[in-house]
Amino acid sequence: MIGRLNHVAIAVPDLEAAAKTYRETLGAKVSEPQAEPDHGVTVVFVELDNTKIELLHPLGENSPISAFLEKNKSGGMHHVCYEVEDILAARDKLVAEGARILGDGEPKNGAHNKPVLFLHPKDFNGTLVELEQV
Amino acid sequence: MIGRLNHVAIAVPDLEAAAKTYRETLGAKVSEPQAEPDHGVTVVFVELDNTKIELLHPLGENSPISAFLEKNKSGGMHHVCYEVEDILAARDKLVAEGARILGDGEPKNGAHNKPVLFLHPKDFNGTLVELEQV
Repeated sequence: MIGRLNHVAIAVPDLEAAAKTYRETLGAKVSEPQAEPDHGVTVVFVELDNTKIELLHPLGENSPISAFLEKNKSGGMHHVCYEVEDILAARDKLVAEGARILGDGEPKNGAHNKPVLFLHPKDFNGTLVELEQV
Repeated sequence: MIGRLNHVAIAVPDLEAAAKTYRETLGAKVSEPQAEPDHGVTVVFVELDNTKIELLHPLGENSPISAFLEKNKSGGMHHVCYEVEDILAARDKLVAEGARILGDGEPKNGAHNKPVLFLHPKDFNGTLVELEQV
């Protein structure tokens, strides 16, 4: 069912510093910050040869990553995103096997403007898993 | 400097259950458990189309992931591993820029029998970073 690893998301307390670390210290190709107001984050994309790292910083009120950064002041790995071909088929299979979907269980338009779902970390080894239909 | 994302490592409290989740619930290609006594872990490799997830479980005394699992009982994302072409050149550049290398600063033979280093999470957004020479 799952295909490529679309990205690893890392929540960071200082987006400019984190982008500089990846650009200068680790020598990676790093995008300009991109505001995603619908998702409550500003994102910097780190383009690796086979996948992406997304550096996330809270944007506006009620950002979904604010609580995480309260608990993890230095930042930390926030979620992994796996690609699926058919997100509704994936969702139905997961629910049938007892996995919990976050929110109301309906796919939302994600940061890449594609349908996404988030799966409950307790059902996936303490790891927040995003599924994205590609 | 960094090239591909070699793997994302997820520490898990129950390796058999985690392997089953990835094989059956998420429908991924999953290896048999592989004991790595030199590294204090048993590993299950989840082969994605573009990279790997490594499910890690403690093996023996003094496993490097025991403390992590004490703190994160459900498991969790433990580190990311980026590939580099020349690990000594990478190490020297990182040290020159003030980043801290864990241990004595000398590359060790990693789980894939290639030279690896671990970088201090506080210097990399709360994320434990492994570099592997490929």
